[in-house]
Amino acid sequence: MTSYEIRPIGRVRSPLVDRRDAPRQPDEGAPGAWLEFDEDVRAAVAGIEPDTDILLLTWFHQADRTVLTTRPRDDPARPETGVFGTRSPDRPNPVGLHQVHVEEVDGLRVRVAHLEAVDGTPIVDVKRVIS
Amino acid sequence: MTSYEIRPIGRVRSPLVDRRDAPRQPDEGAPGAWLEFDEDVRAAVAGIEPDTDILLLTWFHQADRTVLTTRPRDDPARPETGVFGTRSPDRPNPVGLHQVHVEEVDGLRVRVAHLEAVDGTPIVDVKRVIS
Repeated sequence: MTSYEIRPIGRVRSPLVDRRDAPRQPDEGAPGAWLEFDEDVRAAVAGIEPDTDILLLTWFHQADRTVLTTRPRDDPARPETGVFGTRSPDRPNPVGLHQVHVEEVDGLRVRVAHLEAVDGTPIVDVKRVIS
Repeated sequence: MTSYEIRPIGRVRSPLVDRRDAPRQPDEGAPGAWLEFDEDVRAAVAGIEPDTDILLLTWFHQADRTVLTTRPRDDPARPETGVFGTRSPDRPNPVGLHQVHVEEVDGLRVRVAHLEAVDGTPIVDVKRVIS
C-alpha cells in the first residue's frame, strides 16, 4: 500500500525531557509549552488565535511502532487490549492528539497550557476545535 | 528536518466517492461507512468496541498540501484565514480527524456512523475518546 510522508512543521519546546516523565493526560499536571513553527508555514499559523482551544497533532518520535496491544496505564484493572482502544503513544502510526489552550501567539511561537509532549516532539498539524 | 513515514493500516469503504460530495462535518448528513483494516494490525483492532465513540485519523490523499490559507466553507462571513485555524483538508500534513460512533465490529471490518471521508481514504490510526 502507498505510504505518505509527514513533514514536521515545527517542534514542541517543553521542560519535559524524558518520555517517562510525561503525564499520560493533561489533567495529570503537564506543564505549559511553546510550539515553535517553521517559517514556511507562517501564513497557516496566523489562523491560531489566543484564548482558544486547538487540536495539536504531533509525532511521537520515541514511540515503538511495532506495539499492537498494551495494558492501559490509566486503568490498571483493564486487561491487555488492542492499542486502537487506548491512547498509548506506542502504535503503528504514532500521531499524538492533544487538545490544548492557547495562551499567547507571538509570530511563529505559540504558548499553550498543559501539554503532555516532551521537548523536541515534532508538530504535524493544528486544527480548530469543533464545539 | 527529519520526515516520517505514514503507513496506512486500512481503508474507508463509503458510498461517498467524490470529495466535493463529502459534507464538511458529520452533522451535515455524512453516510455510514466500513473501516477495513489490514491483517497485520488485527491485534490492535481488537481494542475497538461496538457502541462506543472512537477518534479516527485518516490521510486526506486528495488534499493540496501547498495550501496555507483558506476561506472557511462552513462560515462564509469569516475572512481568509490560516488553515491551522480551520478544519480544511488542504494543509501541509493532511491528517483527517473524525469522532465517529462504532455500530459493529466484525473482525477486521468496523462499521461506523456518519463519516465524512470518501471511499478509499487511507486510515492512519484509531484512538479512544477521552471524555
